[in-house]
Amino acid sequence: MLRIDDPATVAEVTAMADRYEAALMANDLDTLDALFRDAPETIRYGVGEVLYGFAEIAAFRKGRAGGSPQRRVLRRVITTFGTDLATVNLEFQREGATRIGRQSQTWVRTDEGWKITCAHVSLMADIS
Amino acid sequence: MLRIDDPATVAEVTAMADRYEAALMANDLDTLDALFRDAPETIRYGVGEVLYGFAEIAAFRKGRAGGSPQRRVLRRVITTFGTDLATVNLEFQREGATRIGRQSQTWVRTDEGWKITCAHVSLMADIS
Repeated sequence: MLRIDDPATVAEVTAMADRYEAALMANDLDTLDALFRDAPETIRYGVGEVLYGFAEIAAFRKGRAGGSPQRRVLRRVITTFGTDLATVNLEFQREGATRIGRQSQTWVRTDEGWKITCAHVSLMADIS
Repeated sequence: MLRIDDPATVAEVTAMADRYEAALMANDLDTLDALFRDAPETIRYGVGEVLYGFAEIAAFRKGRAGGSPQRRVLRRVITTFGTDLATVNLEFQREGATRIGRQSQTWVRTDEGWKITCAHVSLMADIS
């Protein structure tokens, strides 16, 4: 099967995930757009929205006043499969919030570099 | 870059996604376990839990009385990259519930066949 966690590939994807997080915190829309694959198959399930295709995702970001709430990453796991595919999963906490957030991304290497092909962000339900 | 949506690969992953849904509705734990990659890297973010590694995921299922709530799939998008990697994204509605659920899975072809390497399930926040 595909080689898991080839070190060079992990290093590449780690750099991309860091870049994504910095762009999200800065609400740098150009960079965020550039990190999503510009294709109809691209999907983003957000905390309060479902977005199909790159155009819907870009439009959502443009309409999101102030961008994403500031957050702290609590735990992050990056796993690569072969040299062209990777998953980035992380837990986060928004400033002033108590609930745990989770973000999952699948990245694929394209002719234009690494891109997110699907993403899912949610706040964990309090079911205690 | 990797070929998107090779028809034979899409057919294979579609069959696996159908099998997963049937096993989830039947609370068929053996099949559900068999469809997750038995590895420490496997991650499942559920509606109310975060699970790292195959062992935590299997233990959670065993302790979940009655299994998953019954649900109806409203929309499903399967995308494949090359012949060894795929994403399955779907929206669902639980019986008697009004909120929309979302499930994202990344599948990888292993020596033992197609397996889920990460999954994220959430209910969309009502932020109206």
